[in-house]
Amino acid sequence: MSILTATYQLYGKPGSFEKKAEGIALGLTIGSWTDLPLLEQEQLKHHKGNVVSVKEFEEINHPLKPELVKAEVAVAYPSANFSADLPAILTTVFGKLSLDGEVKLVDLDFSHDLLSHFPGPRFGIEEIRNTLGVAGRPLLMSIFKGVIGRDLDFLSAQLREQALGGVDLVKDDEILFDNPLTPFEKRITTGKDVLTSVYEETGHRTLYAVNLSGRTSELRGKARKACELGADALLFNVHAYGLDVLQELAEDDEIALPLMAHPAFSGAFTSSAFYGLATPLALGKMIRYAGADFSLFPSPYGSVALEKTAALALGKELTIDSPLKRSFPVPSAGIHPGLVPLLMADYGIDSVINAGGGVHGHPAGAAGGGQAFRQAIDAVLQGETLQAAGKQHQELQTALELWG
Amino acid sequence: MSILTATYQLYGKPGSFEKKAEGIALGLTIGSWTDLPLLEQEQLKHHKGNVVSVKEFEEINHPLKPELVKAEVAVAYPSANFSADLPAILTTVFGKLSLDGEVKLVDLDFSHDLLSHFPGPRFGIEEIRNTLGVAGRPLLMSIFKGVIGRDLDFLSAQLREQALGGVDLVKDDEILFDNPLTPFEKRITTGKDVLTSVYEETGHRTLYAVNLSGRTSELRGKARKACELGADALLFNVHAYGLDVLQELAEDDEIALPLMAHPAFSGAFTSSAFYGLATPLALGKMIRYAGADFSLFPSPYGSVALEKTAALALGKELTIDSPLKRSFPVPSAGIHPGLVPLLMADYGIDSVINAGGGVHGHPAGAAGGGQAFRQAIDAVLQGETLQAAGKQHQELQTALELWG
Repeated sequence: MSILTATYQLYGKPGSFEKKAEGIALGLTIGSWTDLPLLEQEQLKHHKGNVVSVKEFEEINHPLKPELVKAEVAVAYPSANFSADLPAILTTVFGKLSLDGEVKLVDLDFSHDLLSHFPGPRFGIEEIRNTLGVAGRPLLMSIFKGVIGRDLDFLSAQLREQALGGVDLVKDDEILFDNPLTPFEKRITTGKDVLTSVYEETGHRTLYAVNLSGRTSELRGKARKACELGADALLFNVHAYGLDVLQELAEDDEIALPLMAHPAFSGAFTSSAFYGLATPLALGKMIRYAGADFSLFPSPYGSVALEKTAALALGKELTIDSPLKRSFPVPSAGIHPGLVPLLMADYGIDSVINAGGGVHGHPAGAAGGGQAFRQAIDAVLQGETLQAAGKQHQELQTALELWG
Repeated sequence: MSILTATYQLYGKPGSFEKKAEGIALGLTIGSWTDLPLLEQEQLKHHKGNVVSVKEFEEINHPLKPELVKAEVAVAYPSANFSADLPAILTTVFGKLSLDGEVKLVDLDFSHDLLSHFPGPRFGIEEIRNTLGVAGRPLLMSIFKGVIGRDLDFLSAQLREQALGGVDLVKDDEILFDNPLTPFEKRITTGKDVLTSVYEETGHRTLYAVNLSGRTSELRGKARKACELGADALLFNVHAYGLDVLQELAEDDEIALPLMAHPAFSGAFTSSAFYGLATPLALGKMIRYAGADFSLFPSPYGSVALEKTAALALGKELTIDSPLKRSFPVPSAGIHPGLVPLLMADYGIDSVINAGGGVHGHPAGAAGGGQAFRQAIDAVLQGETLQAAGKQHQELQTALELWG
């Protein structure tokens, strides 16, 4: 029997969790059990939720109600109860329950045959490396800056500068939607021209992830058109749409483009310590299962920062062994070249170093900013300190002086 | 110029909010302003976010960090910055910002021409009353109970019992998905037969809201098919899919069925006092704008309870004067006949009284349970106390004895 196991964090009185867990297991499945005649128990046993484990953390008290302690309880749901799609899964394990006081969905464990219904990334880390021809180092990405209200010439110039800095990927600003000044299709074709010409000049290939936006039912058509026009990748604000929408984009053979999941809006349901979903589940495991090749998330270092344990666990969910391909972790926000050693120590080479201000804010422009990052990456790979490398590379030296 | 104004709740040091608000207004639009050359300021001024108001609540301290106080700041976003769809709107006003510490999106105010892009309910309170032929009282709804793993005969019998109790609406359990025992289309046709036969026996009409589930791109096809098969209404777990998916169902003329929005999963982003969305915005205003005819939410009275101010504000968002039709508030969970006077005082007659256990748990079965509710409603309308009415109506009397 195929099974989905959900782990919840609860707070309650010591010793109260067994009963609470049993209430969840029954309440979210068949409703009642002990009252049922034996014949009905027989009929319903393959639909009954079961408590798998109850762990009480006696030493962890509720910060505002010290009489309560923390617990994690795991409940197994037979997959006979739901269709194999994420909306049905979320509704089953955290539908009503999300409204029932301080309960947080910490993890979901899919049995092997349940997992087989989910595509995972179409390309994954290996195939994206092959496309770029880049092995043995983290990828480098930069982000358009201040592009709202600007025209195609402005975007083209900014894209060219970024590509000249040696970044592997450039992504749209997630708040740049389809608009008359820089329409979606024009961004793709113009971007392609710019990046082809940089490639011809320098031999360096940069991919551009264009923001796929608009009404839900139009997304697949727009994405297919993007593919026809030669787009490199799609950026997608998945949490403003729904995980299943991402999954349908990933599954569509006529799209077949790398998908970059942006974390916009996800803080609404991941930030609280008591409610919502754990970040490694929401931005790690589920984003990978739904098929994103890249998952962006706040790094543990910047101003908009994730708690470090969660940020590392998130990266692990994207890259841990699984029947599904691996997704690139993209720790973001507040990244400058001085953080490269830390990023590579924490996320390894199979990750993307992603910067906005840390590229554009460089005194030598975005091209210099990109170069400083590439120099920092090379230094770490060669076992050099950034200080030493800075002595040989002006761009890196400037960046270190500016940001430390 | 068309404008969207977002109100945020923040915590911070007294006097710090003006700057914080300005940071949001620029950071989520054009990025910078004072550094820009005058020519560029001219070019970008129609895209710049503007701080509309800053209200500091000196007397409301942060519960864990008493040096911080609460504030509400309002920021106006030019609609030139986004396409007129909810994913673009949520990404603009609460994309990155949702990840940026303790900030809660309290309200959104749409200017008139922006609002014109949203359908609102297709039917609304008046047309649903017309369909049912019920005026001058709240509607009564009940919910299937314990239907996971059960067959069509079981559902039919339960539906018949509920209809015989005089309920106006019966809704599917939100965790009942398409399944081999009770497939979607069979539920519709079988339900229709049951309800037609009750109507022929009693003259009382009951509508059945069937749970629309499955993959996102299949929903419209399934909903159209439901319409062809004569379905009365659709239940939809909107928050497990996305608000725009609901809106596309509401806008589709080939579906044209009343839509009932279930709050499943919404607690993940509404429950925290510090993060996510305010409940009246998420389950009230946005659900109405996206086109649900009914919005279910936890009542302020039951075991799964909303804070009362929020629960009342939510009801108001669904019914307040607006160019859009009104949606029925459906306060739910833990409702029994003894709560009817309170429900009607709080939500008026233009609401739905919705019960699961309070109908099925009645000693005279679901039929008796429904009757007890109808008797309670009639008593309130006639200015009688429930105690007095209970003396004349056995079902009500039994319910009052059981639940108080």
